[in-house]
Formats: sequence, C-alpha cells, structure tokens
Amino acid sequence: MSISIDAEATGTVQATDPVRDLYADWSEIMATTPDLTMRLFRSIFDEWHQPTREPEAVSYKEDVVGGVPGIWAFPEGADRAKVLLYTHGGGFAVGSASSHRKLAGHVAKAVGVVTFVLDYRRAPEHPHPAQVEDGVAAFKALVDSGIHPHDITTVGDSAGGNLAIAIALALKEQGEPQPGQVIVFSPWLDMENKGETLITNDATDALISVPLLEGMIAGVLGDSVSPQNPLANPLYADFSGFPRLYITAGSVESLVDNATRLNALAEAAGVDVTLSIAEGQQHVYPFSAGNSEPADAELARIAGWYKY
Amino acid sequence: MSISIDAEATGTVQATDPVRDLYADWSEIMATTPDLTMRLFRSIFDEWHQPTREPEAVSYKEDVVGGVPGIWAFPEGADRAKVLLYTHGGGFAVGSASSHRKLAGHVAKAVGVVTFVLDYRRAPEHPHPAQVEDGVAAFKALVDSGIHPHDITTVGDSAGGNLAIAIALALKEQGEPQPGQVIVFSPWLDMENKGETLITNDATDALISVPLLEGMIAGVLGDSVSPQNPLANPLYADFSGFPRLYITAGSVESLVDNATRLNALAEAAGVDVTLSIAEGQQHVYPFSAGNSEPADAELARIAGWYKY
Repeated sequence: MSISIDAEATGTVQATDPVRDLYADWSEIMATTPDLTMRLFRSIFDEWHQPTREPEAVSYKEDVVGGVPGIWAFPEGADRAKVLLYTHGGGFAVGSASSHRKLAGHVAKAVGVVTFVLDYRRAPEHPHPAQVEDGVAAFKALVDSGIHPHDITTVGDSAGGNLAIAIALALKEQGEPQPGQVIVFSPWLDMENKGETLITNDATDALISVPLLEGMIAGVLGDSVSPQNPLANPLYADFSGFPRLYITAGSVESLVDNATRLNALAEAAGVDVTLSIAEGQQHVYPFSAGNSEPADAELARIAGWYKY
Repeated sequence: MSISIDAEATGTVQATDPVRDLYADWSEIMATTPDLTMRLFRSIFDEWHQPTREPEAVSYKEDVVGGVPGIWAFPEGADRAKVLLYTHGGGFAVGSASSHRKLAGHVAKAVGVVTFVLDYRRAPEHPHPAQVEDGVAAFKALVDSGIHPHDITTVGDSAGGNLAIAIALALKEQGEPQPGQVIVFSPWLDMENKGETLITNDATDALISVPLLEGMIAGVLGDSVSPQNPLANPLYADFSGFPRLYITAGSVESLVDNATRLNALAEAAGVDVTLSIAEGQQHVYPFSAGNSEPADAELARIAGWYKY
C-alpha cells in the first residue's frame, strides 16, 4: 500500500488510494440516491478513469473491429503486430472504452504492444451472450486482418475479466484458435454470489456489495441463462488447454476469492497460471496506474510475465 | 448542418447532431431530477467529450503549470514553442480538462501547436476571480518557462470563452504582456442575462436556459461581485489594444448574441476580430469535431486564421 506521511502537517499517517476514494464516493451516491437511474449509474461509472494518470506518449483512434466499436491505444513505438483485446469491467452494464482508455493505455505501454478496448453491447438491453459474442467477433476480425491468434492477448477487469476468459472458452468451443495469453484484473466470475470473501471482506471493500452484484447478475442473465453456464460463470468451465493466464486481485476486495478459485481451477487443469494478490488493494486497483506504487508495480510484473 | 439521408430505410431525411443529442439527454435528466446534486451535475457534464471523436496522433500528459493542474495535448509534430492555453466551459462550475481533452486535442492538431487544458478552481467552492487568477497564473508560468507571450493563444468555450478573454484583460490591467491571439467558442459573457436570444432562441437551444444560467451566475459571483464587473462580464470591458480575436457560435443557440455583441465591441475598439456564426448549430458545436462537417469546417477556418 502506498503510504504518504505528512506528520508535520497532521500528526498522523495517511494512506492514499485514489481507487478507494472514488469507490467510497460512488458508494455514498448509491446509498443516498435510492432511485439512481441506469443513465446516471453509467455516468458515474464513466468516471472510472479518474484515478488513472494520463499515460504519456500514447495516442488513440476510434475504430470498429468485427462490427464492435472501440478505441485503439497506440503507445509510441509499440509492436502493432501484437494486440491486447481489452474488455472493460462494470458488471456487463456500465463502464466503457472511454472509462478504461487510460488504464488500457498503461497496460499497452507496459507490455509494448497496441490495445483495442471494446465498447461491447451492455446489459440489461443486451443480455448474455451478447458480450461474449462481441468479444469473439472482434477476436476473429483481428485474426482475419492478419494478426496471428497467438499474438492476441485477451485482457479484462471485473466483468471484463470474465469476458476475457469467456472469449477464449467460446473460441475453443467453436474449434477456433485461442488467444496466446489471457490477463485478468479482479475477475468477476461467480454468478451465484457464493464466494466467502463477499462476507469476510465486505467491510474492507469500498465498492462491491452483494445487492449490487445481484442487480448486475439479474441484468446480464435475465430469466433464461443459468448462473452455472460456463460462458457466463467460468468457475464451471473446463480449463484444459487454456492459454497462459495472469490473474491479479486486491487482498481486501470482496471478489478476491474469484481470483483464487480461478487460479486453483486453472492449476488443476495444468494451465500455466500466475496469481498476484496485492496486499491492502481494492477491486481493479491497477486503475491507479501512474498515481500509485502498487498499480505501477503490478503493471511491471505483467510486463515481465508477458511472452513475445 | 450535417444531413444524413437514408431514404431507402426510413423514407425520411434525418439531421444528425451529436452535440444536440447529448444536450437533449442532459436537459431531460435536469428536468426529471429536480434534486440533482452538484456532484451528479458534474458527472453528466464530464460526458461533454462524448460527441467528440478521439483525435488521432495526439498524446497527453498531466502537468501543473503555475500551480494549476491540467492536461497537455501534444499533436504529433506540433510546434512546442507555441501554446494554446485552453479554459474549458461549464458555467465556471462543471466541465474539466478531461471533458475537453479531445476537443482541445482537435484544436491543437488543426492549428499545429500544443495545448494545455486547465483544471482551474471551480465555483461555487471558488467564486470569481479564482478562475481568472488561475488562468493568469498559468499564462505567466508559460512565459516564465520561455514561451513568448505573443506565441500564447488563450482559447475557451462558453464560460471558458469568458475566461480566455478575461485572462487577456487582467494581464493588460496588470501591465503584463497579453496573449498574441484569443479564440472563443460560444462565449458566455452576459452575467446580467440580458441577451435577446435567450428568449428568441429558447426553443431551438437544446441546453441553455435562463434558470440554468441564473444558477451558474449565483454560484460564480456570489453576493459580492457585480454582474457588470468587466473581468466577470467582458461586455463591460475596454477592448482597446485587445489581441486578434476569433469568435464562433451557433445560430440557434441562446447565447449567440453574446458572440455578436462581443464582435461589435471589439470592432468598435479597432480589434482585428473575426466572427463565424454556423447556421443551425448548437452551443459549442465544435464538440462534434471528427464527427460532423460543421465542426470540422470551423476548425479548418480557425487553422486558416491562426497566425504564426
């Protein structure tokens, strides 16, 4: 955890965490605005970029890939023959390419390749499997454009981490080549809300709560999709033959056991998997990239892990 | 106006205007959320970037200039010895460097120089003249860093257009060198709400209303600043010796007569002033840069006007 000591001014030790501060603010809005519309819910979650510092020497381009709109992040001098396909978080309902532009730019820059951040169709207007279909369509379009599947890494955070995994699983199911690697930040997989840390970390997680997740699950699954469907809940998937996998999560977040359960499943299936749990950190803590040591250290670990 | 004809599909002619569409959406939120907090008001106005396409080949860097935080936009190959100092709109209370990053990037790219977008202190927490002071401080810091004053252009939209002018007026008052040029998009100057087009364009302006402006005026002026103070309301300023000035506004907006009155004042004072009124366009219509012909045409005119 990043500690900023200003003892002269305050006589106390203050821990600074821009991600936690933003989540505390959102939580207060949600608690005090009982009739918060989906429109305003989306508006506040588009502020997810705020804890992230603008990554320097990265430019952007809006595009449509496989029928799916999104934003390219081009770090200066990056390898354009290798792509990170980034699916943003937000419970399948909120968040956007815009809210994740800076984070995706940091990841792209750390790894030295380009990134496409998808604006996939969101729930509840578009329930599962629309999000997975969009990810698969973008993946196939990249392959059709000449990128080798092995040179594509699917990356995502929270619900987008679920999608980064589900895209690989769906491609395998279709007999298509899978991505070379998968990176997930604080993946949200458990559509049954069964995780123990939902309870044990409830007091320390500044954002995630069981009622919030229940609303998101209802929105994306509707009445017709099982919460045990492996493309909606990869904790029920067969991970044999799954690509190299990097998992990170914060130790104090309610969804940390989604990360540890995924790691156990992948290990049991013989996957080349790496788990990194950051002490004291919140949900998708890499959002403080450029503004906090733990986020930057995680991106450096990922850069070391990424295989060319 | 940009007309998209899809007669085969609909049998009708549709006018597309992403700025108007966003304003209509915000107006509906404001009308249906009577207790909209300043926090949520700021959240929705941070979506101001949405009609703007990501400008390609522009990178960004967060910085602090003269004690004022903000975002640099660096178009590839741009002249770094010449600066646009951009003050964003939002009634002095909302909007941010983030909401205006893409627009400022487009202007910078069109003109071929770099831009710094200020996150000046906002009202009502910080009433007038905090915003002008921040702008002046940033201007002086740029000069101290070695940029020639003549090579700085102050640029702003709406309330930020007011500031782009007030910064030049304040510098003159202090006996300091003024910027070489000033560019304003749909400047909001009239702190007395006296403009005729507030009434005559009320039906066609998708965003601005007298009650909205009254709230903004109360926030920035408080009880102690006169609405006729020339640094708060440049319609009361002496424009003799004022820099080259470019003014643009949309013909259907409620504040268009702020632009025409400013033009008349500047002309009467012998200023080298250019006025461009775009037929059928809304408040700060360059926000649709990259996505609409009228916005792109305006930026091209500004690029032709800008003097090296």
